[in-house]
Amino acid sequence: MTGPGVATERYFEDFAVGETVEIGRHRITADEIVGFAHQYDPQPFHTDPVKARDSIYNGLIASGWQTCAIVMRVMCDAYLLRAASMGSPGMEEIRWLKPVRPDDTLIVKRTIEEARPTSKADRGLVLTRWDVYNQRDEHVMMMRGYGLFGRRGADA
Amino acid sequence: MTGPGVATERYFEDFAVGETVEIGRHRITADEIVGFAHQYDPQPFHTDPVKARDSIYNGLIASGWQTCAIVMRVMCDAYLLRAASMGSPGMEEIRWLKPVRPDDTLIVKRTIEEARPTSKADRGLVLTRWDVYNQRDEHVMMMRGYGLFGRRGADA
Repeated sequence: MTGPGVATERYFEDFAVGETVEIGRHRITADEIVGFAHQYDPQPFHTDPVKARDSIYNGLIASGWQTCAIVMRVMCDAYLLRAASMGSPGMEEIRWLKPVRPDDTLIVKRTIEEARPTSKADRGLVLTRWDVYNQRDEHVMMMRGYGLFGRRGADA
Repeated sequence: MTGPGVATERYFEDFAVGETVEIGRHRITADEIVGFAHQYDPQPFHTDPVKARDSIYNGLIASGWQTCAIVMRVMCDAYLLRAASMGSPGMEEIRWLKPVRPDDTLIVKRTIEEARPTSKADRGLVLTRWDVYNQRDEHVMMMRGYGLFGRRGADA
């Protein structure tokens, strides 16, 4: 699915169960937080620094969905755009553990929990856990979910 | 947390367990799909109509994370911006069941699965399930997760 011009480097067989690696970082700005929130999650603690100061969060925080989307982007840049990715059937859990604030650097780590063939011979399911830390090494988010990947040698 | 000028209409006590209601609709455009994908999920089947046609999806589809973000927006407009919302600790599951394509109308239904007080007397946890259908009544997405809501009479 990577299309012409992008070489597929990673197949189902290339995910090593148990392995944990840092896959990338992203520094989030106040503008980015407010921009996403205006479109998708306009709660005042995501859109308005003044109202956010009076909220239980004591300041502007990112929408949890934006943190998920940033993990997705880090994932794409780190390996997914060069992988035989066939999409995802879903997520098993998401935990928003601590607020993400303007100018936080999000550090994304990936752990492969399981890799198993499916009933279709050309693909396999990979269960991955992503842990996100900030620049103070606080664990801000965790999610686990499945991805479908083509098997080596099964290219059309 | 709704701030000055927005009346709080919905507290923890106002979520009726078992109740299912349609909370809103959103028609998604190709521009919206491609715009989100360029920023957060630049896999070719989300960004490029030509490459998408050659993918297993036979055409452009929305990032699953964008569908989640749209549910969040529908939720905000339907009740969350007028509720004593205190954020969410996480999601229990997400299922991306069918592709979401340009010009699909997403119909969002909400079912309250559980509502229970927490150890803090001023708030309660509400477990909600959201089901998303398209204009052909196909079930395209499901997610379940917790929200924290202030209790009636507990306003600071």
